Amino acid sequence: MNLERLNSTKCFDGLQQQFAHQSEVLDCKMRFSIFLPQAAEVEKGHRFPAVYWLSGLTCTDENFSVKAGAQRAAAELGIALVIPDTSPRGGQVPDDPDFALGQGAGFYLNATQAPWSAHYRMYDYIVHELPALIERNFPVSGRRGIAGHSMGGHGALVIGLRNPQSYTSISVFSPISNPMACPWGEKAFNAYLGADRSSWKDYDAADLLRRAPGKLPVLVSQGESDPYLEEQLKPHALEAAAEASGYPLTMEYHAGYDHSYFFVSSFIEQHLRFHADYLLRNR
Amino acid sequence: MNLERLNSTKCFDGLQQQFAHQSEVLDCKMRFSIFLPQAAEVEKGHRFPAVYWLSGLTCTDENFSVKAGAQRAAAELGIALVIPDTSPRGGQVPDDPDFALGQGAGFYLNATQAPWSAHYRMYDYIVHELPALIERNFPVSGRRGIAGHSMGGHGALVIGLRNPQSYTSISVFSPISNPMACPWGEKAFNAYLGADRSSWKDYDAADLLRRAPGKLPVLVSQGESDPYLEEQLKPHALEAAAEASGYPLTMEYHAGYDHSYFFVSSFIEQHLRFHADYLLRNR
Repeated sequence: MNLERLNSTKCFDGLQQQFAHQSEVLDCKMRFSIFLPQAAEVEKGHRFPAVYWLSGLTCTDENFSVKAGAQRAAAELGIALVIPDTSPRGGQVPDDPDFALGQGAGFYLNATQAPWSAHYRMYDYIVHELPALIERNFPVSGRRGIAGHSMGGHGALVIGLRNPQSYTSISVFSPISNPMACPWGEKAFNAYLGADRSSWKDYDAADLLRRAPGKLPVLVSQGESDPYLEEQLKPHALEAAAEASGYPLTMEYHAGYDHSYFFVSSFIEQHLRFHADYLLRNR
Repeated sequence: MNLERLNSTKCFDGLQQQFAHQSEVLDCKMRFSIFLPQAAEVEKGHRFPAVYWLSGLTCTDENFSVKAGAQRAAAELGIALVIPDTSPRGGQVPDDPDFALGQGAGFYLNATQAPWSAHYRMYDYIVHELPALIERNFPVSGRRGIAGHSMGGHGALVIGLRNPQSYTSISVFSPISNPMACPWGEKAFNAYLGADRSSWKDYDAADLLRRAPGKLPVLVSQGESDPYLEEQLKPHALEAAAEASGYPLTMEYHAGYDHSYFFVSSFIEQHLRFHADYLLRNR
């Protein structure tokens, strides 16, 4: 088994664990965290449905694990949480001094441009390699919701909208909704995907929402006091796209909330209950 | 007003804030965090009862604020959380390379020995200066519970047991219960209080419990897989002292839990409900 356990801590009667493994897709050693509800269920051969959580710029698997307080509701609902890192890592992996490019900023895409293309394949990692690894090694079923925050909200929307057969539901906090048209996204996409903007569209949630093949339920939570709202996140582009295509997007603005994990922690229970409605239906 | 606001973030419909102020008692600049339940109540002139949370070795006010997930239950119960730092701070404040002495390790006592005695007066800061500051500047009443973790569990027990008129209730996670008889405590007390052990007794929870003047309700939560249990924490000394004096201690052991904030987060709601039973009684 290609898994090294780094930490295992009891939490809300379940286990919060951290593992390292050699990723074939990313060609580097990766870490992820996982929360498994209580062991009693596992012993009966039960397999938990899972919410995959994609984190934002500068984050690792630890930010959500430590700050979101998600384990309480996940334990109660009987949902596993799978929390990957945000990019390939290590000395051999190209990086950039800008926090919005390179390590910590993989943007959940498959890079096509040197020097990034050798390792920066987070799209394939999240869509294929990681769930296969999880479902092979843990009592976790193939029933998956996908969620995320900021750059991870972008990732969850893009991956969920492009792979509706693989997920039951999408929920995001403060997503980078239209990366083709914001400074963080334009810089990253130029580096990872090159100057031809036609290649960017499959990684742009607002663009995808205009032509999404499925109709996965999507919940978006956005703080109105988020300092990145207008320049980087552009939730209005997502709303306009949903309106144009008739996509049933649930968009919730919250007065006074900012971009931090204090916002995420305030509404994570609502998000997990939203996923549970679909994950636990007709099992 | 001697208060500088560093951060203010909406969280569970309330405000999670961080302030700096010049402490007279500690003769240095200090930070603390505070969570205030929803603003609507404040506008009506309501004053919230408060739980004061004392953190453990190496912590600041941020560990509990970020990791414990306490704001959800505090918001629901209408309780403020006041979260001080763990020692005096700054370049002029003596320090030690050992994580269990000096900055981050104030042990909630009034030091009598040079060079510590000039600044290390966390007992007076927590008992007198901080609540006066809080109640002068925030919509917080004088109805107080006191709680903490590890070194902060020691602090909460010592301060609560010695000042029963100032608190309604004490709750602690994994406290250093008998610091006179454990390596962390002996090293710190030797440095801060000197070699005469008779001066240590007023800062030893197990000793105090044998002769506590009041009968404040006390809840202790201890993980059975805590690596510090036998050598440093010594909960059995606390139980023996309570039994000897007939003190009604509620001691709860939890199988499989360790010393981390994942343990605290799993039971913080129970602790806040325990305090609420007393804080909200006969207001």
